Amino acid sequence: MYQSFKSIGESNRICDRLKALRTLMRSKKVDVFLIPHGDEHRNEYVPPFKERLRWISGFTGSAGSAVIGLKKAALFIDGRYALQAKDEVSRKFFELCSIPGPSPGEWIIQNLHYTGLKVGFDPWLHSKAEINRIEKSFQPCNVDLVNLKENLIDLLRGDEKPQEICNPVKIHPMEYAGVSAEEKIKALQQDLLSAGQDATVLTALDSICWLLNIRGNDIAHSPLVLCFAIVNSVEKPDLFINKSKLDTSVHSYLEPIVNLYENDSESLSIRLKNLSQKHKVIRVDYETCPVWITQKLLISKEVVHGRDLCLIPKAKKNDIEIKGARSAHLRDGIAVCRFFAWLDHMTHVNEIDEISAAEQLELFRRESGFLRDISFDTISGSGPNAAIIHYRVTTESNRKLRTGELFLIDSGAQYKDGTTDITRTVAIGHPTTEMCECFTRVLKGHIAVASLIFPIGTRGADIDPFARRALWSAGLDYNHGTGHGVGSYLSVHEGPHSISKRSEEALLPGMIVSNEPGYYKEGIFGIRIENLMLVKEVTASIEGECQMLTFETLTLAPIDRRLILLNMLSNDECTWINTYHERVYNKISSCGLTDDDQIWLMNACAPL
Amino acid sequence: MYQSFKSIGESNRICDRLKALRTLMRSKKVDVFLIPHGDEHRNEYVPPFKERLRWISGFTGSAGSAVIGLKKAALFIDGRYALQAKDEVSRKFFELCSIPGPSPGEWIIQNLHYTGLKVGFDPWLHSKAEINRIEKSFQPCNVDLVNLKENLIDLLRGDEKPQEICNPVKIHPMEYAGVSAEEKIKALQQDLLSAGQDATVLTALDSICWLLNIRGNDIAHSPLVLCFAIVNSVEKPDLFINKSKLDTSVHSYLEPIVNLYENDSESLSIRLKNLSQKHKVIRVDYETCPVWITQKLLISKEVVHGRDLCLIPKAKKNDIEIKGARSAHLRDGIAVCRFFAWLDHMTHVNEIDEISAAEQLELFRRESGFLRDISFDTISGSGPNAAIIHYRVTTESNRKLRTGELFLIDSGAQYKDGTTDITRTVAIGHPTTEMCECFTRVLKGHIAVASLIFPIGTRGADIDPFARRALWSAGLDYNHGTGHGVGSYLSVHEGPHSISKRSEEALLPGMIVSNEPGYYKEGIFGIRIENLMLVKEVTASIEGECQMLTFETLTLAPIDRRLILLNMLSNDECTWINTYHERVYNKISSCGLTDDDQIWLMNACAPL
Repeated sequence: MYQSFKSIGESNRICDRLKALRTLMRSKKVDVFLIPHGDEHRNEYVPPFKERLRWISGFTGSAGSAVIGLKKAALFIDGRYALQAKDEVSRKFFELCSIPGPSPGEWIIQNLHYTGLKVGFDPWLHSKAEINRIEKSFQPCNVDLVNLKENLIDLLRGDEKPQEICNPVKIHPMEYAGVSAEEKIKALQQDLLSAGQDATVLTALDSICWLLNIRGNDIAHSPLVLCFAIVNSVEKPDLFINKSKLDTSVHSYLEPIVNLYENDSESLSIRLKNLSQKHKVIRVDYETCPVWITQKLLISKEVVHGRDLCLIPKAKKNDIEIKGARSAHLRDGIAVCRFFAWLDHMTHVNEIDEISAAEQLELFRRESGFLRDISFDTISGSGPNAAIIHYRVTTESNRKLRTGELFLIDSGAQYKDGTTDITRTVAIGHPTTEMCECFTRVLKGHIAVASLIFPIGTRGADIDPFARRALWSAGLDYNHGTGHGVGSYLSVHEGPHSISKRSEEALLPGMIVSNEPGYYKEGIFGIRIENLMLVKEVTASIEGECQMLTFETLTLAPIDRRLILLNMLSNDECTWINTYHERVYNKISSCGLTDDDQIWLMNACAPL
Repeated sequence: MYQSFKSIGESNRICDRLKALRTLMRSKKVDVFLIPHGDEHRNEYVPPFKERLRWISGFTGSAGSAVIGLKKAALFIDGRYALQAKDEVSRKFFELCSIPGPSPGEWIIQNLHYTGLKVGFDPWLHSKAEINRIEKSFQPCNVDLVNLKENLIDLLRGDEKPQEICNPVKIHPMEYAGVSAEEKIKALQQDLLSAGQDATVLTALDSICWLLNIRGNDIAHSPLVLCFAIVNSVEKPDLFINKSKLDTSVHSYLEPIVNLYENDSESLSIRLKNLSQKHKVIRVDYETCPVWITQKLLISKEVVHGRDLCLIPKAKKNDIEIKGARSAHLRDGIAVCRFFAWLDHMTHVNEIDEISAAEQLELFRRESGFLRDISFDTISGSGPNAAIIHYRVTTESNRKLRTGELFLIDSGAQYKDGTTDITRTVAIGHPTTEMCECFTRVLKGHIAVASLIFPIGTRGADIDPFARRALWSAGLDYNHGTGHGVGSYLSVHEGPHSISKRSEEALLPGMIVSNEPGYYKEGIFGIRIENLMLVKEVTASIEGECQMLTFETLTLAPIDRRLILLNMLSNDECTWINTYHERVYNKISSCGLTDDDQIWLMNACAPL
């Protein structure tokens, strides 16, 4: 299994750890210590040895941050984690603060403010933009930000800290990548030249893996390698990587295209110094690049802010990647269909629980012979557990799938040709009318997005409201975005685009984005319907004046017909569902299912 | 008539004026001069003696700006004015630049850049935020911004410049205002105290008129008085106003609530100096307050940016204002219905043109006995003229209403109890299928907005996409926002809210906003359907979890049934139209129409 269901259950140790941290803070002469979840690469998922936020707070979510004062502490989390944080984090030790809401800086001023406050931070874990924002929120109070040489949590964990594992690096071959590393590097150098810039520092792992066509295994469920890169506009890039992860073939693949350095702060420091002496204009992403790096560059003539230049070309999948995505989704769809067929046959015996369901789904995916990993810990929630948006089932929370309840399963796979992510919510036994009404509203939102035609330039924020309208009509809503970008055998959450209220990024042809409206009734049930979609140009039939874009749904699996109230659908919505189901049936049924699964699929895809 | 149809036709003088301006620029040692349309109050409509942009460029629109270099010049206009500017402005003298697009600062760098460039501006006509943005776009080039003591256009116009007219000020009585000036001032002072601020400078005319319950006649079609105000947190506010505009009754109304000063730069200068010596924290809106004022305040301990505190209470109409708005719209609806009945009877004889139509509509409004002014120059466009979004008909452009064409009329009225704004597009004779299809798509967008239920916190930008979806499906769109706020016997365009891609402002109960999607086929036809709507809380029937808001349509006039393709409407859309028409019929038919008009109304409001 790629997933562990072990309860992390460190909550009984939080009290001692906080005490130890505060003693250390006093000895280091800081009154406050900032602990973000992310690491120096801004990874959403971090390797175990960097799980500092979890260690100090017990919070296991993939986004958030803590502020630890000498007496008070606060945890900042967004809507997806509101219920989970309540469960995992003791309010005795942490005040829970919602994002959006007061920022950590504002919280410090409101709660800890006294003259001469010293706020410590790890310069590897904060970007220049973040530090600027925190400084701004401290004005005009007398607060000092203190750059700490060592991370206090790492100091405390000492030997208890898990070790970095030496996972081998693999080449991501042209048959999946579509474009060679040389070509990508050349294009990036061209972008630098056009911008009048001499070099840039890359800190995002998926950017570097994408650029060099390499994959690794350093982060759970994302095929990433821990590394840094410096790309200048004319010469070979520098790659900072643990060289023992490179076997001979990978070494000889990389050697002609990059200068190889060890991934330690000394090597990086020397090269950054060299860089700032040699080059004039250095581009750095102030939102994501650690201040540790920007500080090293400060002796340079000019350091300018600029977004990671890999973001857009990585997000816009090329034809080979698109072909790969379609294959990956067909393969994944077969596993998902087999799973739901199995579930429908099994639920009569009432023996399935959240864990065994997640295990069975992983098994079907493995049987494809192509599974490299799951793309994130499966969210397998029955009844009230499904209302916890990012629920992670453990042996403690595990619950049987019960008749009369809804079961939500959000899962994905990593295949060499693509990354998948799908959520389905199904009825176990007979659903209530309320469940069906809410499900149908979520479905109407899903269809409104999936069937949208929109002009070039349309941003994620322009699309998000369509997903909510049917819920709004009933006074309902959901507290998360509608969709995120997805990588190509890379991170399952990939920017810069998304479909959400705050997304100013225009959707471009070739981008893959999820469509996952939901509705959550705390303590009772949760609903989410998620497909991945490819953004593409509208070519035929429309004789309009603007170049329009639309979506192609990549995910192939039936949406539970038993939860759809037909009288709530318009004709167009009904046609959308029937057309989608027909497509799912045609694609999946020809892939060697058993007779039983074939019959199940036919019923599941029958017209409404 | 409140409107003149005279062709402004100054285009033949532009060449000489530009020559004269450039000579003056050389003598003043500036290489560039900035000419915004707005005045020191950021009025959208300015009095004739401040029509500087029109004088130098010939452009008659209500938004835009020019940059005049010694050899090149550019005019910056938004999508609403794209066609109009092409007509009015000679490309021999001005490059036409679209907003959004390169900013004036960026244009200067790209087109005029040479070392030591000096850019002159009138400090009354630019805010601190604007000047900062321009300065930023000049970095890192060597460009100086030069604060000019006198506006160069005013110097050039000399005696030719129209004089300010001494229009009397009127009291806006409690029966329409709903809340007394004393109460409003007290509330504003309380807001200042809560924000820890000692005083604020008000420069927006509608804010000051709203605050003091006064109205005037200094701006065409908006009942505003040219003035400034300084409000401090404890004492009487200062009002700077041409005192000869105050008769005895108005004088004795104002004297107890404000300190009266002449509206000249000397009085203002003295009081601003006094203010900055006496008070610690002074709030100024950096986006709108002229730098002339912020410069005078700079000796103060602390000048802070803060939005005009009147904006939100002015935008959220009170119960009396809402009652007034409903009465004003009923009265206006009668005039509009009489007009369209007249038009349908008359078009057979083919004698109506754009001007006579606008005159007739004004006549019907006058016959109510309550018309104080029209709320803007009527946009009366037949055939291709309707595709010019902000078309202003002149004796030169005037066109007959012809069979087989569409006629668009966008007009509004100022009544003491409310300001109206309505657009209808009607078929003259038999419309083409394309016209009907486009009209129905615009209508579907209008209904999607009008019938929306949305949670508190929803911004204008979240609502805008609903208005466009049906057009997008056919590859069409329109190049303007979907709606603007409207004042209460004040400006017909009132912030801070709007429905547009860029509107980050949440809609709040009591706000009035227009709903006016459109579609424009250049050179052929134009369509717009506009109603005003009141934002209100959803009280009944929904048992959801969030407090939801919705719209009440205020405007009462039929939407041309002859242009609606029933088979393109969903059942809900069809019901919306029928319900709206039933309401229009019930309200208007009981208001003493002639028998002929009564019959016309019944047909126009018959169910689809």
